[in-house]
Amino acid sequence: MTNNSCGVFYGAGVGPGDPELITLKTLRILQKSPVIAVPKANDESSSVALGIAKKALRLDGKEILELSLPMTKNAAELATAREKAADEIAKRLKQNLDVVFITLGDPMLYSTFSYFVPLLKEKLPSLKVSVSAGVTSFSSAAAALMLPLAEGEGRVAIIPASYGQEDIERTLDGFDTIIFMKVHKAIDRLVDLLRARGLDKNAYFISKAGWDSEEIETDIRKLKGVKHGYFSMLIVKK
Amino acid sequence: MTNNSCGVFYGAGVGPGDPELITLKTLRILQKSPVIAVPKANDESSSVALGIAKKALRLDGKEILELSLPMTKNAAELATAREKAADEIAKRLKQNLDVVFITLGDPMLYSTFSYFVPLLKEKLPSLKVSVSAGVTSFSSAAAALMLPLAEGEGRVAIIPASYGQEDIERTLDGFDTIIFMKVHKAIDRLVDLLRARGLDKNAYFISKAGWDSEEIETDIRKLKGVKHGYFSMLIVKK
Repeated sequence: MTNNSCGVFYGAGVGPGDPELITLKTLRILQKSPVIAVPKANDESSSVALGIAKKALRLDGKEILELSLPMTKNAAELATAREKAADEIAKRLKQNLDVVFITLGDPMLYSTFSYFVPLLKEKLPSLKVSVSAGVTSFSSAAAALMLPLAEGEGRVAIIPASYGQEDIERTLDGFDTIIFMKVHKAIDRLVDLLRARGLDKNAYFISKAGWDSEEIETDIRKLKGVKHGYFSMLIVKK
Repeated sequence: MTNNSCGVFYGAGVGPGDPELITLKTLRILQKSPVIAVPKANDESSSVALGIAKKALRLDGKEILELSLPMTKNAAELATAREKAADEIAKRLKQNLDVVFITLGDPMLYSTFSYFVPLLKEKLPSLKVSVSAGVTSFSSAAAALMLPLAEGEGRVAIIPASYGQEDIERTLDGFDTIIFMKVHKAIDRLVDLLRARGLDKNAYFISKAGWDSEEIETDIRKLKGVKHGYFSMLIVKK
């Protein structure tokens, strides 16, 4: 019980790309919330997430709050940008408006949503935060590839492809299914490593899973030397 | 192009438990399909998946095809039961009826759906199979716990808790977040192991994530010696 009533801060996954993979819960939250916050970075994810929301329902009359979040590894620059974005969100919440932060996929898996929860709780200690889970990109990829990620006692690893050879080798040793995320910069190295281990026939590449522009490649040797986008993954199933 | 037209075989995830976490795609497939296939085992998952479908839409006039699939490790018994169940599904498909096999969570992650695809393709080589991805139980758990599973370059492992100490130790060493599935039989051992490594404060237990009967325990020492259900998991975030 507090006097400082404020809006609810929602994290809502809109799914991997196909607007039909949005959940009823996310749809309801989008419908009732007057403010939709979407990170605007140098990648396509923000516009894609907003595009999905737009296909799922009419957004007329709602505020689209674009948060400028640069894709940088400069910690100070990032902290300043996040603080500024959190201020913008907090301003609406203090006006007793619900704010829904939309995320491609699921808000709890590789999303910037989670950074904002502590920042906002600091500004508004009594803030209510609620998360609507979403379908992940790898579930969508598995559906498109018709590839079971795990059966029975199967073990699954999810690892960004930027890791070094030793980490990747160890992960390949210890797991039945390995999902390499963000493979765009590491694809040549990864293809060589998988071929050397005789695992190239067990590897499946998918880019923009669930999007209209989805691409699948099952002969991973063809991936070498080709430029791939940020939303690409490689699944190895032993 | 084939003369042997037959129904489509759908694998559709109904999400982790909350009927609101069903996707629009699964809802549409359920609406248009005259046959809903649901595995009937000795656990609660089948009735739960059907319960979610029933809450999401009216099933009047549809055939509910219950497939008897015993929870046994006897390979021959299992193969016979699956073959019989596949025959039942194939019979409807041959009558040009679409059949949707419903799965709690996602059809590509620890679901019996994937076993039926090759069995049915053998009987009906031109069969069209389509998968509607679902929200997983661990995404729902992370939402309830407000626990980001991965941020930035984070690595996630999903491993059934039945594995031995060495496997579990290695997984704890190599990953930032470890999701232990089906912890009901291994909980005492797991709690001891996590305490010995000083990771008990980083561990979160959740049972029936997203169900009305969801249970959360953040003091995992309280879990020892208590009977837990099949739908329980433990998430360790270092």
